Amino acid sequence: MKQQKFVYFFGGAKAEGLGGQKELLGGKGAGLAEMTRIGLPVPAGFTITTAVCDLYYKSGKRFPQGLEKEVARHLSRLEKVTGKRLGDPKDPLLVSVRSGAARSMPGMMETILNLGLNDRSVEGLAAKTQNPRFAYDAYRRFIQMYAVTARGLPRERFVEAHERAKTRHRARTDPELPAGALKGLVQEFQRIYQQLERKPFPQDPAEQMWGAIEAVFGSWMAEKAVTYRKVEKITGLAGTAVNVVQMVFGNKGDSSGTGVCFTRDPSTGENVFYGDFLVNAQGEDVVAGIRTPLRLAEMERRMPAVYRQLAAVRRRLERHYQDVQDIEFTVEEGKLYILQCRTGKRTPAAAFRIAVDLAREGVIDRKTAVRRIAPEDIERLFYPVVDSKISAAEKDRARLARGINAVPGAAAGQIVFTAHEAERRAAAGDRVILVRKETSPEDVGGMHVAQGILTATGGKTSHAAVVARGWGKCCIVGCEALLVDAAKQEMRAGGKILREGDPVTLDGADGSVYAGELPLVQPGLPACFKTLMSWADAFRGLAVRANADTPYDAENAVALGAEGIGLCRTEHMFFDSEERRLAIQQMIVAGTAQARQKALAKLLPFQRNDFIGIFKAMDGKPVTIRLIDPPLHEFLPQERPKQEELARRIGVSPEFLTRRVEQLRETNPMLGHRGCRLSITYPEILRMQVTAILEAAVLCRRKGIRAIPEIMHPLVMDEREFAILEAETRRVAEEVFARQKRRVPYLVGTMIEIPRAVLRAREIALRAQFFSFGTNDLTQMAMGLSRDDAGRFLPHYVGEEGNGVFKKDPFQTLDGAGVGELVKIAIERGRAARPGLKIGICGEHGGDPDSIRFCHAAGMDYVSCSPFRVPIARLAAAQAALAAGDARRPTRRHPRRKFVKA
Amino acid sequence: MKQQKFVYFFGGAKAEGLGGQKELLGGKGAGLAEMTRIGLPVPAGFTITTAVCDLYYKSGKRFPQGLEKEVARHLSRLEKVTGKRLGDPKDPLLVSVRSGAARSMPGMMETILNLGLNDRSVEGLAAKTQNPRFAYDAYRRFIQMYAVTARGLPRERFVEAHERAKTRHRARTDPELPAGALKGLVQEFQRIYQQLERKPFPQDPAEQMWGAIEAVFGSWMAEKAVTYRKVEKITGLAGTAVNVVQMVFGNKGDSSGTGVCFTRDPSTGENVFYGDFLVNAQGEDVVAGIRTPLRLAEMERRMPAVYRQLAAVRRRLERHYQDVQDIEFTVEEGKLYILQCRTGKRTPAAAFRIAVDLAREGVIDRKTAVRRIAPEDIERLFYPVVDSKISAAEKDRARLARGINAVPGAAAGQIVFTAHEAERRAAAGDRVILVRKETSPEDVGGMHVAQGILTATGGKTSHAAVVARGWGKCCIVGCEALLVDAAKQEMRAGGKILREGDPVTLDGADGSVYAGELPLVQPGLPACFKTLMSWADAFRGLAVRANADTPYDAENAVALGAEGIGLCRTEHMFFDSEERRLAIQQMIVAGTAQARQKALAKLLPFQRNDFIGIFKAMDGKPVTIRLIDPPLHEFLPQERPKQEELARRIGVSPEFLTRRVEQLRETNPMLGHRGCRLSITYPEILRMQVTAILEAAVLCRRKGIRAIPEIMHPLVMDEREFAILEAETRRVAEEVFARQKRRVPYLVGTMIEIPRAVLRAREIALRAQFFSFGTNDLTQMAMGLSRDDAGRFLPHYVGEEGNGVFKKDPFQTLDGAGVGELVKIAIERGRAARPGLKIGICGEHGGDPDSIRFCHAAGMDYVSCSPFRVPIARLAAAQAALAAGDARRPTRRHPRRKFVKA
Repeated sequence: MKQQKFVYFFGGAKAEGLGGQKELLGGKGAGLAEMTRIGLPVPAGFTITTAVCDLYYKSGKRFPQGLEKEVARHLSRLEKVTGKRLGDPKDPLLVSVRSGAARSMPGMMETILNLGLNDRSVEGLAAKTQNPRFAYDAYRRFIQMYAVTARGLPRERFVEAHERAKTRHRARTDPELPAGALKGLVQEFQRIYQQLERKPFPQDPAEQMWGAIEAVFGSWMAEKAVTYRKVEKITGLAGTAVNVVQMVFGNKGDSSGTGVCFTRDPSTGENVFYGDFLVNAQGEDVVAGIRTPLRLAEMERRMPAVYRQLAAVRRRLERHYQDVQDIEFTVEEGKLYILQCRTGKRTPAAAFRIAVDLAREGVIDRKTAVRRIAPEDIERLFYPVVDSKISAAEKDRARLARGINAVPGAAAGQIVFTAHEAERRAAAGDRVILVRKETSPEDVGGMHVAQGILTATGGKTSHAAVVARGWGKCCIVGCEALLVDAAKQEMRAGGKILREGDPVTLDGADGSVYAGELPLVQPGLPACFKTLMSWADAFRGLAVRANADTPYDAENAVALGAEGIGLCRTEHMFFDSEERRLAIQQMIVAGTAQARQKALAKLLPFQRNDFIGIFKAMDGKPVTIRLIDPPLHEFLPQERPKQEELARRIGVSPEFLTRRVEQLRETNPMLGHRGCRLSITYPEILRMQVTAILEAAVLCRRKGIRAIPEIMHPLVMDEREFAILEAETRRVAEEVFARQKRRVPYLVGTMIEIPRAVLRAREIALRAQFFSFGTNDLTQMAMGLSRDDAGRFLPHYVGEEGNGVFKKDPFQTLDGAGVGELVKIAIERGRAARPGLKIGICGEHGGDPDSIRFCHAAGMDYVSCSPFRVPIARLAAAQAALAAGDARRPTRRHPRRKFVKA
Repeated sequence: MKQQKFVYFFGGAKAEGLGGQKELLGGKGAGLAEMTRIGLPVPAGFTITTAVCDLYYKSGKRFPQGLEKEVARHLSRLEKVTGKRLGDPKDPLLVSVRSGAARSMPGMMETILNLGLNDRSVEGLAAKTQNPRFAYDAYRRFIQMYAVTARGLPRERFVEAHERAKTRHRARTDPELPAGALKGLVQEFQRIYQQLERKPFPQDPAEQMWGAIEAVFGSWMAEKAVTYRKVEKITGLAGTAVNVVQMVFGNKGDSSGTGVCFTRDPSTGENVFYGDFLVNAQGEDVVAGIRTPLRLAEMERRMPAVYRQLAAVRRRLERHYQDVQDIEFTVEEGKLYILQCRTGKRTPAAAFRIAVDLAREGVIDRKTAVRRIAPEDIERLFYPVVDSKISAAEKDRARLARGINAVPGAAAGQIVFTAHEAERRAAAGDRVILVRKETSPEDVGGMHVAQGILTATGGKTSHAAVVARGWGKCCIVGCEALLVDAAKQEMRAGGKILREGDPVTLDGADGSVYAGELPLVQPGLPACFKTLMSWADAFRGLAVRANADTPYDAENAVALGAEGIGLCRTEHMFFDSEERRLAIQQMIVAGTAQARQKALAKLLPFQRNDFIGIFKAMDGKPVTIRLIDPPLHEFLPQERPKQEELARRIGVSPEFLTRRVEQLRETNPMLGHRGCRLSITYPEILRMQVTAILEAAVLCRRKGIRAIPEIMHPLVMDEREFAILEAETRRVAEEVFARQKRRVPYLVGTMIEIPRAVLRAREIALRAQFFSFGTNDLTQMAMGLSRDDAGRFLPHYVGEEGNGVFKKDPFQTLDGAGVGELVKIAIERGRAARPGLKIGICGEHGGDPDSIRFCHAAGMDYVSCSPFRVPIARLAAAQAALAAGDARRPTRRHPRRKFVKA
């Protein structure tokens, strides 16, 4: 059996490793190898693989057999390439020993510089460089790093000694310490080392190197690194690699220096060379931020030759990696060294510009450009943010609490504790933040006018979160540190009491709640956004619709590229005004079908008008309208004073009303009297809604507006149930058409959100013209999980923080193995009965990229999501098609039909 | 095309119809044809088929073409056979015109007797019989019947005229009216007829006959008949047949008479000839109950020849029909006529005796005997009933209200409104009836000691109903007329106020609630019960287990033939005493795992003792123990005063406790933090329960008791979740075995009650050793139906009263098309991973015969149901096997393994 290769050399314009071997060599090691291969000036060195780290831990922290020899061989090779020897008392080779895993873990892993110095070689270095100060400074840095990192000695002891030396020599800054003082400090450091370790500081460079290698491996399992990987959800890595690289020094005088640059501007994406440079400095000086770095333009002036060389490297690297690179370099006495390069992080706006520019420049193709944009980049484009001028410290001082960041973006305004007060103040022109323990459909009016919403309870799929997400409105939920006392009109948080009218700021990006109004800024849409989205549209097979309940939402959705409405919830319309609310409440309280009809007759013109507005906004695009869905008790006030007020207004006794509320109360409302069950028991509701929809459609068509209504029955569980609903819908439709003397094409379909409907999909599809998956409810029922309650135990199930039962929250990302199978079964059975059955999804998952990938693979026709997520869905749909290798040829801009696989 | 045959003749020992043609000829017509065929003395006649009734209604109440001719032809034939002519002025043929559908609808349908009489033929009849009184009496009866039934005239007018005549002639009873008076009455009746109908009483016998036929058809759609069919769930019938039959008269003097007899005693099943006989009387006199009939023994003395003939008919009919017959007969001047025979209704006890006796006599085989018993017969054997001495009128007077008859049987005692008071009074030796708006697990202690339970809300699967059914305890739920005011300690119903301690009686058979204590009697188990059940056991493939939570239940279950426990709910144990309740409440209120462990440690010995008792009772039989299932809030009091008391007792502040209750409250508890989710978040609960189970098992084994524990995790939804539970269970088991220095075999399995678990059944079965379907929850989740709330709309879905979406309540009978498919999928996937995987059902459906048939077909190993339903399940399982044609050969008495199909 061939011996496993543990070490990979690079140097002298050759490298054993490849740029693609990140998993084996780590990001840094692979980058150094690749850059060496393409002829860039990289210091020589070698990489010990991540596999060694894995073996090291698997064998109880022992190095694998053969490693020592292999390292020794590569060290010799390094000495040959550099022409120096480690520990050479005259002209010693110095090396850095650095970690480097396959994924970047900034600040988590250890590095030791200047290794190879000892009491003898430091003298040689001083002589060779004719710079004793430089040599002793390098030595004292090495001793400290080695002591702290490799031996775990307390950093403070060294820092204190350093400070004492500075005091003694009246040096305000490090560079003011003279060479002699540094030499004394080296001795002092060695004393501290000896005292704590009970043995002298190692003089043997080999011993130093093995100590450093062990230190790097050790840092892989250090608590902070393990925690970091957990938090960042980094899994599946074998370990860290170790890079032993020849040291180069940017602090050897004015012809030396060090810098960091981006091949393009990472904040705007503009194609300009962008970076910072410090003369006579080492990398850590740049990071420490003590000195103000120079712009690259200044470098061009000072070191024109080196700058030209660097500019060539910039072009070479960007072409080679086909993306913007973040480059670290050092100039040692006029000679340029590239120490590291990696894909450059960028702002969302820059991401668009870079992708489009690179495609236009021919560096990448359009497919690659589309793949380059992360869905979160889009989301972050749209939301206002707290002005970046506010420092972290200022934020910390103002922060009252932190909740769950349900909808990103920031909002500021006056606190209000009731929806009513929100509406009152908003009408008076105030900006308000609605603060509730939790929200209910009654609060929707107030939620709509608020700048942002803050609740003490609930998770990312609570009522507040779902409704706010639909509007792209800042929302923080589950802020448990918040004690809301609506009766007293105050809230307590962070030891403070805030009252109605007090200013507050929400940052939906991280869930922070701040006292006072912080300044907010609204990022603009980058110019390249439209271009890139049009490319994405050309690739995707899935159509993208929006969930929109109002003409306002509908216009918004169209502006963001929605090709129809996939879910228009009719019940929110009932809360839109006092008058409507009263009518629906009268309907519910009514004891007879006749009284219900009377109340419904009042609602009819309102609903009709709403639909007219929506059809206008969507002219020529389909609008799927879901008939009433929530249980009726959600429409009635639950508190006694409000009940009394309502009773007075609709002319019944408070006792009667209370009793009615009591009657309607349900143990498990999710599984209760709601959805189409309401239309079965109160067919007059269905009649009113269908009449309003189709009268609106007829009126629109008369005015030349192409209304395309798709009437959707929610919560269907059986084909006979659907047959009753469909027959009644068509009967009412015929009545409307006869009365109006005009027909309008329309569809009648169903939601698939009850497991039984999945099983009966074949029979249901014999009558249903379309299916729309309500994956919120389907997830709840298939998994036996109430999303209102699951917050209490679902965290124990999800991800590494939980028991890992589920990788992701099934309410955010469709549970492929369970709910997903149901979706597939329903599609298969539905299309067996009705080939080409139109199928979409309108649950929260419709805007989640992973779920969109699933929908694409499952063969759906469209996804529907909140207007603000429409661009995300368009992009994710394109990426799903690209990933599946079945992207459409880029011909039509807005595909409406599903891509058919060969 | 051959003309459809509308009329079937019988007479002269020949019949065109067959006994099996009930659907076409109705029960009566088929019976008359069959009896004629086998040579019994049956009056001649003909039957107009139910198909004619169907055509009559389908064509807008018109007789089909050709019917008139066919009837005329058969009438001629009848006249020929009887030697008399309809309307003959000398010796007229008289006929009865009677309805007769395929299913008996007693009292619902119309009959007209003595048809053929008119002003001339009545004289002929008088002359021929030399009995003018008889002739005029027959005529006046005919006029009244025809007027009321065929013409819809008000009966009172005729009754009043009759009463006036009696007064005029000072006759106290009908027979005292002399012939002349009856002749006058006939004239008076004809005047009334003429006045109301504006035309004279029809003298043409053909006209009379067609009027009568129409009347019979008309009665099929009369409101009372339609309602009756709805209530009795009689569907799928074409209509009623019409039987036109020669009249015979039992009222022609002392050599005449009429009677009803059973071939065996219908109340005991004893093989004795049983019946009543009235000399010189017509059938209606027997029914009217004016005269006291004679026993058959007396008939034997008075008419020995006729009696012998009747006894021969008895033997002939029972052999022919292979079952007990209910026979109507008339003796006309010494000649016996059999008018009707049908399968005799019998008491549950008689049903067993008859089936066993017939099998022993060789009339039927054992399979048939087993098929003969209806599951309800068994149920009714076990429950106390209101003494039959209490008349219907007495009951009506005492009745306060009627609710839903959730568990049959009757109970009487003092009203109590709280579980606590129930326990107090029961401890003092009182019999109590617990009356609640609804019950919760907190009430279980009080429910257990009560004689019966009455709730104002809830359906047949509410908490009260389910718990009571488990104990076979009388329970009436959903008694909406009841206003329960627990605070005032009173209830209002039927205009009365009843207070704590007032006596009340519940009749679970029909849901009646009576004021006062009515006398109850307990039926004994018939001697043949065991014999028949042993025959059933020999045929079935499914094993039958019981749901039992206590040693008492377990003993009961074994006595009733349970072969194991399929569901032992551990949470009920927590309510068994004040001390236990307090410990579980402390556990829930505890803020830390440590505090929870402390409280759990108190519960451990209680649970261990319970399990020891159960293992003892089940010695050698498997016991499936479900770990804690309900959400924790069910264990805490919801009302503030109780919370304060509890807070005091466990030493926390009332505010803290209230807050904890508030925290635990769930929007949809059914889909909330319950089942194995509790064991995931609080593994210490699992540890305590597994320890208690296995310590109990070890202790039992030491004493020679064969404990066979099967530990079951409820509400599992994923294989990784189950893996965590299984691993922890086995870890704890190993600890117990090491500590106890003894091992006990045990299984670890799961409930399948979440749709997702169905989909993941293959993966779950890799670790689960058994599956038990929790079809209650599976139904709730698969159908999106909360059984606590569905009462509000499910009636709109079920049966003919609803929209017919579902034939039966899916919570009572497993929904084959939906939930059933899930069950099949889970079985298929589970056994694919683990061939021979043990599979059972432990939901409410486990005791429902239709559902048991499903379980048999699906290939389950066992069903589990409440102890009192065990015999029903044993029978239903046998009948399912017989129906499927795969009954085992009767070798082993108690099959434990599933029958394997060839």
